[in-house]
Amino acid sequence: MSRQIEIEEGWEVVGGAVNGGYLLARLAMAAAAEVPHPDPVTVTGHYLGPGRPGTATVEVTVHKVGAGHSTAGARLVQEGRPVLALLATFGDLTRVPDEDESTVAVPPVDESRPLTREEFAAAPEIVDRVSLRLDEECTGFLRGERGGRPEMAGWVRLDAATLPPAFRLLVAADAFPPTLFGLGEFGWVPTVELTVHCRRRPPEGWLRGEFRTRYVTGPYLEEDGELRDPRGRLLALSRQLALRPRGASPTAPR
Amino acid sequence: MSRQIEIEEGWEVVGGAVNGGYLLARLAMAAAAEVPHPDPVTVTGHYLGPGRPGTATVEVTVHKVGAGHSTAGARLVQEGRPVLALLATFGDLTRVPDEDESTVAVPPVDESRPLTREEFAAAPEIVDRVSLRLDEECTGFLRGERGGRPEMAGWVRLDAATLPPAFRLLVAADAFPPTLFGLGEFGWVPTVELTVHCRRRPPEGWLRGEFRTRYVTGPYLEEDGELRDPRGRLLALSRQLALRPRGASPTAPR
Repeated sequence: MSRQIEIEEGWEVVGGAVNGGYLLARLAMAAAAEVPHPDPVTVTGHYLGPGRPGTATVEVTVHKVGAGHSTAGARLVQEGRPVLALLATFGDLTRVPDEDESTVAVPPVDESRPLTREEFAAAPEIVDRVSLRLDEECTGFLRGERGGRPEMAGWVRLDAATLPPAFRLLVAADAFPPTLFGLGEFGWVPTVELTVHCRRRPPEGWLRGEFRTRYVTGPYLEEDGELRDPRGRLLALSRQLALRPRGASPTAPR
Repeated sequence: MSRQIEIEEGWEVVGGAVNGGYLLARLAMAAAAEVPHPDPVTVTGHYLGPGRPGTATVEVTVHKVGAGHSTAGARLVQEGRPVLALLATFGDLTRVPDEDESTVAVPPVDESRPLTREEFAAAPEIVDRVSLRLDEECTGFLRGERGGRPEMAGWVRLDAATLPPAFRLLVAADAFPPTLFGLGEFGWVPTVELTVHCRRRPPEGWLRGEFRTRYVTGPYLEEDGELRDPRGRLLALSRQLALRPRGASPTAPR
């Protein structure tokens, strides 16, 4: 199955490339349209090249339609260049109970610090689509501080409501500044692979995100993330394999 | 590209299905054969049905061949039934330095407890291919104990040397008893998806594995793993999305 989709304007980050989480959500939505299960349960994307606003060709291959889950692969291509390859299993997240032991205490939204367009050197378009607040201890990079921890935490809100709730989790998982900014290590941190395990459909409004890197080995590092609702219920786990910036820069692009 | 491969006998677990890590390694090897980069850097498999020893059809699609990395998708089919879908990026792990901050202290191999065929109710074939030793505090399930933690840790050794070193990490990531056995919750824990980030080629001999589950939400749980060499250097991070057993059983199959 091959068809055209439109990548909206307004999701561009530094350099004009479209945010990887938004691309992942759009490609996952295209794959979900070919199977009977509505929600992304586990989605993996491998990033092959920058995506741009405009027309894209999407190819979907359904691998299996089962009773509780369906699995499909997909590929997004623009002007003959591969942008993103995806492998995903879909299910029904309404099967997950409202309450369980995954709930933890989270700080209130209004104790975190809103980020403005002016605070980003490159003022990427995405700041009009994604509202972000960071925990105060994660904002040192805005003042050029070095030597912190490779962690980012705060709140994200996706007011562009054209994505079904569970697919917004894929965007939220890739919406925060890189964890390496917490170290004061700036630069483009390309994502090789991003996997998101969605556990619940998120509510409207603010979502809590906490991301950290434990291991940098040569060119590779992981960013492990947890997304929660304002009550602290687990919404998703994410992990990406990223590449360390080759040259460090003292400015703070996103 | 479509071709036939042989799934060896001797990797069967409970019920006669072939171990998921071995299937993942074999399918990743088939994908790697089509690209110039030798090592698996990030491999995701979605499990679609049980694999059996014997002939399998493998289809590989190369998505991108880049300077440092290549990405391919692959699918394994037996007798017309889909068994495993894979998406992987390959690179060169010899670029990763020998030493870094990912090294941690690990306990000596000889303080862990060998597992014998007799200790597994179902005596799966895989115990002849994979040697396993568990930390003493993770062996309560062998005595039918309940109420521990959802953790498994110990050592694994893959004496079947037909797999190139980095691909053995994919087997090691799926070779331990389920973390839920640590709780005394027994049963088949089907893997929906398994992603392994390989950071270094492993040495011959024993590999350290530590696995834990933090969040069980409805039918879903994650198993997060770390694989290290005997010096404690990080070899790989793994995460799988698995399904909780529907019925608990007081016996301890593997």
